[in-house]
Amino acid sequence: MHPASVKSAASRVHRYLDRVMPAADTRPATLHEAMRYTVFGGGKRLRPALVYAGGQLAGVEPDALDPAAAAVELIHAYSLVHDDLPVMDDDDLRHGQPTVHVRFGEAMAVLVGDALQALAFEMVAGAAPVLAQRWTQLLAEAAGAAGMVGGQVLDLAAEAREGPLSAADLEAMHRRKTGALIRASVMLGASAGDLPNEELEAVDAFARDIGLAFQIHDDVLDVVGTTAELGKPQGSDERQGKTTYVTLLGLAGAKREGQRRFEHAVAHLDSFGARAGDLREIARFVVERTS
Amino acid sequence: MHPASVKSAASRVHRYLDRVMPAADTRPATLHEAMRYTVFGGGKRLRPALVYAGGQLAGVEPDALDPAAAAVELIHAYSLVHDDLPVMDDDDLRHGQPTVHVRFGEAMAVLVGDALQALAFEMVAGAAPVLAQRWTQLLAEAAGAAGMVGGQVLDLAAEAREGPLSAADLEAMHRRKTGALIRASVMLGASAGDLPNEELEAVDAFARDIGLAFQIHDDVLDVVGTTAELGKPQGSDERQGKTTYVTLLGLAGAKREGQRRFEHAVAHLDSFGARAGDLREIARFVVERTS
Repeated sequence: MHPASVKSAASRVHRYLDRVMPAADTRPATLHEAMRYTVFGGGKRLRPALVYAGGQLAGVEPDALDPAAAAVELIHAYSLVHDDLPVMDDDDLRHGQPTVHVRFGEAMAVLVGDALQALAFEMVAGAAPVLAQRWTQLLAEAAGAAGMVGGQVLDLAAEAREGPLSAADLEAMHRRKTGALIRASVMLGASAGDLPNEELEAVDAFARDIGLAFQIHDDVLDVVGTTAELGKPQGSDERQGKTTYVTLLGLAGAKREGQRRFEHAVAHLDSFGARAGDLREIARFVVERTS
Repeated sequence: MHPASVKSAASRVHRYLDRVMPAADTRPATLHEAMRYTVFGGGKRLRPALVYAGGQLAGVEPDALDPAAAAVELIHAYSLVHDDLPVMDDDDLRHGQPTVHVRFGEAMAVLVGDALQALAFEMVAGAAPVLAQRWTQLLAEAAGAAGMVGGQVLDLAAEAREGPLSAADLEAMHRRKTGALIRASVMLGASAGDLPNEELEAVDAFARDIGLAFQIHDDVLDVVGTTAELGKPQGSDERQGKTTYVTLLGLAGAKREGQRRFEHAVAHLDSFGARAGDLREIARFVVERTS
């Protein structure tokens, strides 16, 4: 039950990526095949949808946003490949398919991730100079030590320690691990237009809240979802003894907190009227999705 | 016996990196500590030296080139961390010190590499827009599937197959694996100025040749160098049964070929006079270094 904005973003970015990614029959063919396996193996394309929706708010046409939408998806895809490695989360299944290291070997999985990250930056560098620079900055900060990778390190540290995380530490970890790239997705779109600073700040506040709502709902889904719907093993957080919003707040409490964050997020969009239509639709999807 | 241009580039880029890299006592401290261990653990800083020397040729001051010099070194450093992983080359020693995965664990080594790559792009994005865009493009192409990562995949494929590589396949592999980033280093510097196209093309031809000369001399050093000088085990190519310029041409033949490539490279610089002084000095160092 993906909303129209997510469905159209998914097919848009799929077409674009298919056009710009190296062909699976050019050298080194195995690398290109594995890159395509990674990128076209599934996924909701939520981050591209947020790029286009952020652009809608700023009056920017989707055409102009394809490179940014592709780039966030590439960063997201590479991070999953590296997260799934045996030395990290050791997952065999992703989107219902064997993970990249299971299918292509661990060395190739490391390299596929590395190549996808570089390709993401090649994508954003293709825009006009001022926008290319802004996009590169947004993406690099969100992807690096201050963002996604830093969050992954905090997550590993949390797993290694005795006892649960505090609510503050859990939030700090998720703000980086998933929140930073979700926020960047919205801002890549919104920053491609000419919004005044106070409007950009409202969008930014929305983007931060919705990133957290996304993670809270992810924790809920790990408990109430099914392996078939999720495309990965249900209940893995609990088996790994992870601190989640469900362990901290209980299932009902986590659902309420997700809803509260969602309402908080969309309140930042009140003044935008119809321009924020897709962002509102995607925000609702974030806390109501079943996978 | 590093020449003056390499020594001054090394201390310049060291100071710059020390200033811009996340402090080892800020969160996540382990990640930042491991990033600094990786970057400040040693290395000739040959690629930064090529950036500054390329800039000298184009009349660009070193100050303006620090972000690009830092960025190529970060890409190079990340690639070594991932190459050294047990699932890749499985090396325990680098610059005479334990490799990153030995010291910090494999998961952290994957993440350190990922964070350093993102940081490289954050660096180049800090330049003025037109230059930031050009730098991001050069760096992304050199680092990705069409460059360094693609070369690493070809290298793995070569190790997995029976029998030696042809000279053409060996060259194709090295042009990507080490050549692409060496070429990009020179071009990051040279493209920061206003050189006419025919001059840029001559620099580019130099950069391609010197990348290959570098690799040929690397193969020679693996045979004639000492473990102490190299900071990594001498003779590892032979033990791994790798095709190298020495196995293809013999030791004397490989030395001659390195010299020939060097002469070919510097011939492209003839018309530049003193502006190419540092590039010539570094080119000579590339084929005369003992480590």
